[in-house]
Amino acid sequence: MTQWVYTFGDGSAEGRAEMRNLLGGKGANLAEMSSLGLPVPPGFTITTELCTEYYKNNRTYPADLAAQKQAAIAFIEKIIGAKFGDPANPLLVSVRSGARASMPGMMDTVLNLGLNDETVEGLATLSDNPRFAYDSYRRFIQMYSDVVLEVDHYHFEELLELAKEDKGVQLDTDLDGDDLKKLVGQFKAKVEEELGRPFPQDVHEQLDGAIGAVFNSWMNDRAITYRKMYDIPESWGTAVNVQAMVFGNMGADCATGVAFTRDPSTGEHSFYGEYLVNAQGEDVVAGIRTPQQITIVGKEKQNSDLPAMEEVMPEVYQQLVDIYQKLEKHYRDMQDIEFTVQNNKLWMLQTRNGKRTAAAALKIAVDMVAEGLITKEEALQRIEPESLDQLLHPTLDPKSEKKVIAKGLPASPGAASGQVVFSSDEAEEMAKHGQDVILVRIETSPEDIHGMHAAKGILTARGGMTSHAAVVARGMGRCCVSGAGGIQIDYKAECFTAGGKTYRKGEVITLNGSTGEVMEGRISTIQPKLSGDFGQLMQWADAVRSLRVRTNAETRLDAKTAREFGAEGIGLCRTEHMFFDPTRITAMREMIVAEDKEGREKAIIKLLPFQREDFTGIFEIMDGLPVTIRLLDPPLHEFLPHTEEDMLAVAKGANISVEKVKARASALHEQNPMLGHRGCRLGITYPELYAMQARAIFEAAVAVQQSGKKVLPEIMIPLVMFKEELVRLKQLVIEQAEAVFAETGMTVEYLVGTMIELPRAALRAGEIAEEAEFFSFGTNDLTQTTLGISRDDAGAFLTHYQDLGIIEKDPFATLDQDGVGELVEIAVERGRKTRSDLKLGICGEHGGNPASIHFCHQVGLDYVSCSPYRVPIARLTAAQAALKNKAALKAAA
Amino acid sequence: MTQWVYTFGDGSAEGRAEMRNLLGGKGANLAEMSSLGLPVPPGFTITTELCTEYYKNNRTYPADLAAQKQAAIAFIEKIIGAKFGDPANPLLVSVRSGARASMPGMMDTVLNLGLNDETVEGLATLSDNPRFAYDSYRRFIQMYSDVVLEVDHYHFEELLELAKEDKGVQLDTDLDGDDLKKLVGQFKAKVEEELGRPFPQDVHEQLDGAIGAVFNSWMNDRAITYRKMYDIPESWGTAVNVQAMVFGNMGADCATGVAFTRDPSTGEHSFYGEYLVNAQGEDVVAGIRTPQQITIVGKEKQNSDLPAMEEVMPEVYQQLVDIYQKLEKHYRDMQDIEFTVQNNKLWMLQTRNGKRTAAAALKIAVDMVAEGLITKEEALQRIEPESLDQLLHPTLDPKSEKKVIAKGLPASPGAASGQVVFSSDEAEEMAKHGQDVILVRIETSPEDIHGMHAAKGILTARGGMTSHAAVVARGMGRCCVSGAGGIQIDYKAECFTAGGKTYRKGEVITLNGSTGEVMEGRISTIQPKLSGDFGQLMQWADAVRSLRVRTNAETRLDAKTAREFGAEGIGLCRTEHMFFDPTRITAMREMIVAEDKEGREKAIIKLLPFQREDFTGIFEIMDGLPVTIRLLDPPLHEFLPHTEEDMLAVAKGANISVEKVKARASALHEQNPMLGHRGCRLGITYPELYAMQARAIFEAAVAVQQSGKKVLPEIMIPLVMFKEELVRLKQLVIEQAEAVFAETGMTVEYLVGTMIELPRAALRAGEIAEEAEFFSFGTNDLTQTTLGISRDDAGAFLTHYQDLGIIEKDPFATLDQDGVGELVEIAVERGRKTRSDLKLGICGEHGGNPASIHFCHQVGLDYVSCSPYRVPIARLTAAQAALKNKAALKAAA
Repeated sequence: MTQWVYTFGDGSAEGRAEMRNLLGGKGANLAEMSSLGLPVPPGFTITTELCTEYYKNNRTYPADLAAQKQAAIAFIEKIIGAKFGDPANPLLVSVRSGARASMPGMMDTVLNLGLNDETVEGLATLSDNPRFAYDSYRRFIQMYSDVVLEVDHYHFEELLELAKEDKGVQLDTDLDGDDLKKLVGQFKAKVEEELGRPFPQDVHEQLDGAIGAVFNSWMNDRAITYRKMYDIPESWGTAVNVQAMVFGNMGADCATGVAFTRDPSTGEHSFYGEYLVNAQGEDVVAGIRTPQQITIVGKEKQNSDLPAMEEVMPEVYQQLVDIYQKLEKHYRDMQDIEFTVQNNKLWMLQTRNGKRTAAAALKIAVDMVAEGLITKEEALQRIEPESLDQLLHPTLDPKSEKKVIAKGLPASPGAASGQVVFSSDEAEEMAKHGQDVILVRIETSPEDIHGMHAAKGILTARGGMTSHAAVVARGMGRCCVSGAGGIQIDYKAECFTAGGKTYRKGEVITLNGSTGEVMEGRISTIQPKLSGDFGQLMQWADAVRSLRVRTNAETRLDAKTAREFGAEGIGLCRTEHMFFDPTRITAMREMIVAEDKEGREKAIIKLLPFQREDFTGIFEIMDGLPVTIRLLDPPLHEFLPHTEEDMLAVAKGANISVEKVKARASALHEQNPMLGHRGCRLGITYPELYAMQARAIFEAAVAVQQSGKKVLPEIMIPLVMFKEELVRLKQLVIEQAEAVFAETGMTVEYLVGTMIELPRAALRAGEIAEEAEFFSFGTNDLTQTTLGISRDDAGAFLTHYQDLGIIEKDPFATLDQDGVGELVEIAVERGRKTRSDLKLGICGEHGGNPASIHFCHQVGLDYVSCSPYRVPIARLTAAQAALKNKAALKAAA
Repeated sequence: MTQWVYTFGDGSAEGRAEMRNLLGGKGANLAEMSSLGLPVPPGFTITTELCTEYYKNNRTYPADLAAQKQAAIAFIEKIIGAKFGDPANPLLVSVRSGARASMPGMMDTVLNLGLNDETVEGLATLSDNPRFAYDSYRRFIQMYSDVVLEVDHYHFEELLELAKEDKGVQLDTDLDGDDLKKLVGQFKAKVEEELGRPFPQDVHEQLDGAIGAVFNSWMNDRAITYRKMYDIPESWGTAVNVQAMVFGNMGADCATGVAFTRDPSTGEHSFYGEYLVNAQGEDVVAGIRTPQQITIVGKEKQNSDLPAMEEVMPEVYQQLVDIYQKLEKHYRDMQDIEFTVQNNKLWMLQTRNGKRTAAAALKIAVDMVAEGLITKEEALQRIEPESLDQLLHPTLDPKSEKKVIAKGLPASPGAASGQVVFSSDEAEEMAKHGQDVILVRIETSPEDIHGMHAAKGILTARGGMTSHAAVVARGMGRCCVSGAGGIQIDYKAECFTAGGKTYRKGEVITLNGSTGEVMEGRISTIQPKLSGDFGQLMQWADAVRSLRVRTNAETRLDAKTAREFGAEGIGLCRTEHMFFDPTRITAMREMIVAEDKEGREKAIIKLLPFQREDFTGIFEIMDGLPVTIRLLDPPLHEFLPHTEEDMLAVAKGANISVEKVKARASALHEQNPMLGHRGCRLGITYPELYAMQARAIFEAAVAVQQSGKKVLPEIMIPLVMFKEELVRLKQLVIEQAEAVFAETGMTVEYLVGTMIELPRAALRAGEIAEEAEFFSFGTNDLTQTTLGISRDDAGAFLTHYQDLGIIEKDPFATLDQDGVGELVEIAVERGRKTRSDLKLGICGEHGGNPASIHFCHQVGLDYVSCSPYRVPIARLTAAQAALKNKAALKAAA
């Protein structure tokens, strides 16, 4: 018999924290807390396995579930001393989802389950609070109808509004027990009207309905979108947690709150949280009421007028402090906790590793090493490499003028400028067209996920630091200002007012998520200063990793930036971009239109000083580090003149007619330039071109070496398919080197190698390595040819492929390990067999992609090369890959 | 010590026929004939190894050659009873090239070597014929100067013409001994004038010069061109044969001739040859004098007035007949022999397997099996599969009107029409531009090889059936009419006159190489009737081969032709060509420009009846044989309207604006369509399109099956890169099948499979085979992606690559076995591992290429598919591959 149900409560549990795959994160942690002796309302978790079973069997349950569920309810009843459905002494439960990975707000929850027309009376008597009982009942009907019965919540909101109007009051709290009892009647009638059947009174039917709704919510659109965004497999499924209700809304000695054991925004080591007195369930995170601070320090920091929990409930607060410290030590990570205080008794409802900004993650990890809580290796594994991107990007220039129009909470750091937009759909649409947008909402809900993802920043009028907007924005690395009470949003008119001025859709504002400031217009930005923590972590990473990290750079600026970020050389210096400069393009074009070798040579010689200068600059900056220079690669027609004026200039320079220029341009047109006359094919047909480039490299290298710097040029021949191509072009390079060395009397060490970017080259790597001193995998082209997809044309179908699930990830972003990866492995193996010291690297876009970097480490490349801003990401990923490998080896041994 | 020199003569020899790699074809056969006791002038062969050594050592000889050569000369001297350079009794020798493969006329020959001012007198005395002696001497000077000393032959021809003018005579033979002696003096003076040194008198110096010239001629342009044309490796080198001279020009009891043991044009079993009385060396093959027939039968056939050798020299003739029969039995193949009669004594100068037309090869092979001379397997291996192409192509329609303007010899069969052109360079140039040309020459020489290759047919005014033009044209499979004496050619005016009419360059004529007729204008052609021999050979091939042969066909006509040629199914029925018909293209275009699924479905449904009709026709013809139908493959934009008129038609049909049509056309434009939105990507994004095609296939299949025929459709999904694509599209096909079967109440057996045409598909063949019931290797696309070369754009560099020797053969014609081939092997292995009965075929152009077919057999494919006219070629190649494999297995065992 499969165990589908795991109980917890009263100081013990059937589950453990390690069982999150089976019990979901929430369930596993509830079990763990219970075992730790913390005050957890008793309950049980229905496993993720059941979810899988449920979907496999066309949304039905296995036969043996009912008995297990029944036994688990009896377990709760015994601890609580109440009975599920008992009119006199009813047990109420909450039903919550809980997947392996946290998916905040994506799936459904039902509270106060177990109430019906009879038990509500029992609850009224027991609590001696009929208003509380009927408020709980009407909330339950509203929530259950929405989630389980699919009766839209606006029906109930309307009835609630009418009730308040009838009574002439403004707030829900102005309604008394009788009002609410009447409202319950109206709610039930509405349900019956909508469904044609009454609201279920059988508490077991209620429970089954809620469990089913949670499972079903695994496949709702929000959940699917979220999973896609965070790469969560559908097959994981969700667990369901059924737990005895505790109430934070039974009076002034009740409260509910969420807290982080450290600051999730900065990582600062201080207890940080928010709570609401006399409130239930999701009131805090939903952002409906602006919450109070838990600590006095927090209250002061936020200039809040509302009293802190530390002041209001000092004993409970102290208990909470003890618990959070215990939890952080136990889990050895920053925790995000949820609690409820019922009549001054503290109950823990959740603990989990807290989401945090990249800066916070960095600080927490480094601090915890200092505190002796975790090792350096663990610290390295705690940081999501991609998240470093947030730290490396520009912040607002403090010197620039700015007009602050509103201030909110610094919910997620960073800076962003963009056009104001008020709906998530529109945000997504505009972003698709390349526009920067700021999503402005009164508050956000899980339905806004796609808009938040598309936006550069999020601004909300309501909600705290733990509101939906804040939590999600931090997770995504989006800048966010939440709870900016000073702005009035009018969705209908598509504008908001702040400081007496109206900002319409499309107008540009700027957010500073690190200060909470909202500013008019676009503000200029500056490069970020990286913290000492960053340097510390990178140092640890460098000590651990074996994979070197180079950069793709062809300008002095890029080379300098990359070197500052720790690049250990240039893995790809493209030479074609150098030709697009207006002072050079004409000579390049003259070369292309020339009709014979002589004409080409005449034009090419004009380019030599430019190229030499380019290389000189780069060699100087990269002093002591290797620089891989790729000889001209793209099809010649890319350089062709398009305008009449350009054509005239070329005709004049080359001393031929405009007609000839046009004819040549037309002759160079290709059906499939990606598979055409490019790469080393140019070097074979126009050897004088590659000869000029080689000469420029060696002249520059000698000059820089003469100035006392160390130059390590690696000359790379692109698009080789046959060894013989490399034989000829290597010879050509060597001839230039020897000529320059003879002329200058100085020699420079250098290598000649090739890009492996065609399937044939990968397969014939064994013989190509007879000539090549290094291989650099050009995985952009290799992906294009292996999959038969041109990047330029993939748009027409690749997104569709992802939507249909035919491919999981864009193969141009994440290396297709099964296909392209096998060719890389083959080339590595065959190349090294021929030449054991063959230097191996990767210079496609994949060189900066963490999943692909893991692969590069695994197959034994020497280095990856990526864009300058991705160098730190690659360094950290390389360290993680090394650690993962070490762990795997250890596990295998 | 390496043996560089092998002697032969006087009934024995150091070499054997099997040693052709070392001794060259001529040398090996001279040795063999000598060992057989046939009358061969004694001589020796310098090995091909020496040639290799000569080139390796910068055109110098090894030290130990001289002594070996000296000994070999002594060997000849002893047999002949004369001394090399002896003024009284001089030995004269010929020096001839002789490579492993016959390269007629490509390299140089020197005759009468050993003559000088002293020995010529000895020869005059011994022969009692001063005219003969001086004629031999002047020929020797002329030939040696041209070949060895590089003094142009026109110098000597001018002097000869002057001598005849001075004496007032027309023919060479009108010059007497004194005239010739005087001429010799003038020749020598001319040489000295040109070179600044006298003509060499030292016979050993003469011999060394001639040997060097032969080796050097291995690298002359003609030889290089010829090797390239016939795939002869440069590394083979040539041997040199030095042989005692025998003279066919010593008087009326002397003659020289060439003969074939069977008719090289038709294969008829009759002795066939030509000779000239009182002629030397190359006079017969050079085509300068129109020769006489050897047999009476031959003479009658050609309506010749000149007496046959059978009449003139009956005894020698009988001796020749005995020898040729002996040789044919010994070599078990048709022989091409050369002989000289000196004073009624017969000398054999050469035997080799004779070149022949494809028809002759076929007849000879089949006849020889019947005669018990060779086995069926040998017969199969005797035929060059590519040569069958000649038999399958059209001949002149006998019913069409024709105006015969001249008649020559039926030198090489077949029919050809084309524009008249008078130079080989021009022929090549015009052919490059896609024009059909007929090369018209007074006579051809080895310098004309490239023009003959480029021309559709060759017409010469002079020369017999064994002239250069005839031999070479037969080898190439070009139609040729030689010796058409009735035409007068004026190279300068670029015209020829025949039947009183002048035909200028560019005018069209037609040749019938099987009758010798030359006709005005273009004559219509008909399909050839294949002989019984052809059927016999194909039957033997079918019994031997294991590789099946299918065809690529999408029309009824092609399907029918292919079936007649023995195709065992259709391996590739492209469905896109069917859409280009004017009655259909508009509906196709409406589909493409449609903005939604509904619009697409509306347009597509119009195409259904057309497609059904297409498939019905093909299924009917292919009754009982499998038909692989590939669903739509090319990028949609290929179907787009280009003209304003077409756009209007589409706009009207689809009921949208012309602007929208234009916008859609522009949106569909792709940078690299070969790597774009095509193949099954269309099926994924527009499933309704593939659904329509599948429905049309099943509706047609059911209809044809209902008519009592057997239908075996195999539905092929193109350009699959991920298994999941196939999963979805297979499902779509199955749904259509089941719908049609349910509607009609009849089921049809069918398969669903895929093309393997992307490297990724080859690598992931293991998982793709979980879905695919067959693989068909689309080696065109696989070559494009594996090598990163688009066929459309390869022209800009691929020829250059071949010229430089970077690649040997066009990879789109001959499969790149190292690269593309490895992917095929991987896919075969992985596919079969998953599904042991996976059907495997190839449907790229390579399916009809013999070298590639051998590869397909080796890797274990089930079938190849090729164009209809190549089906017999593939059948024969498949048989040869099976035999080769069997031989290899036997050799290994």
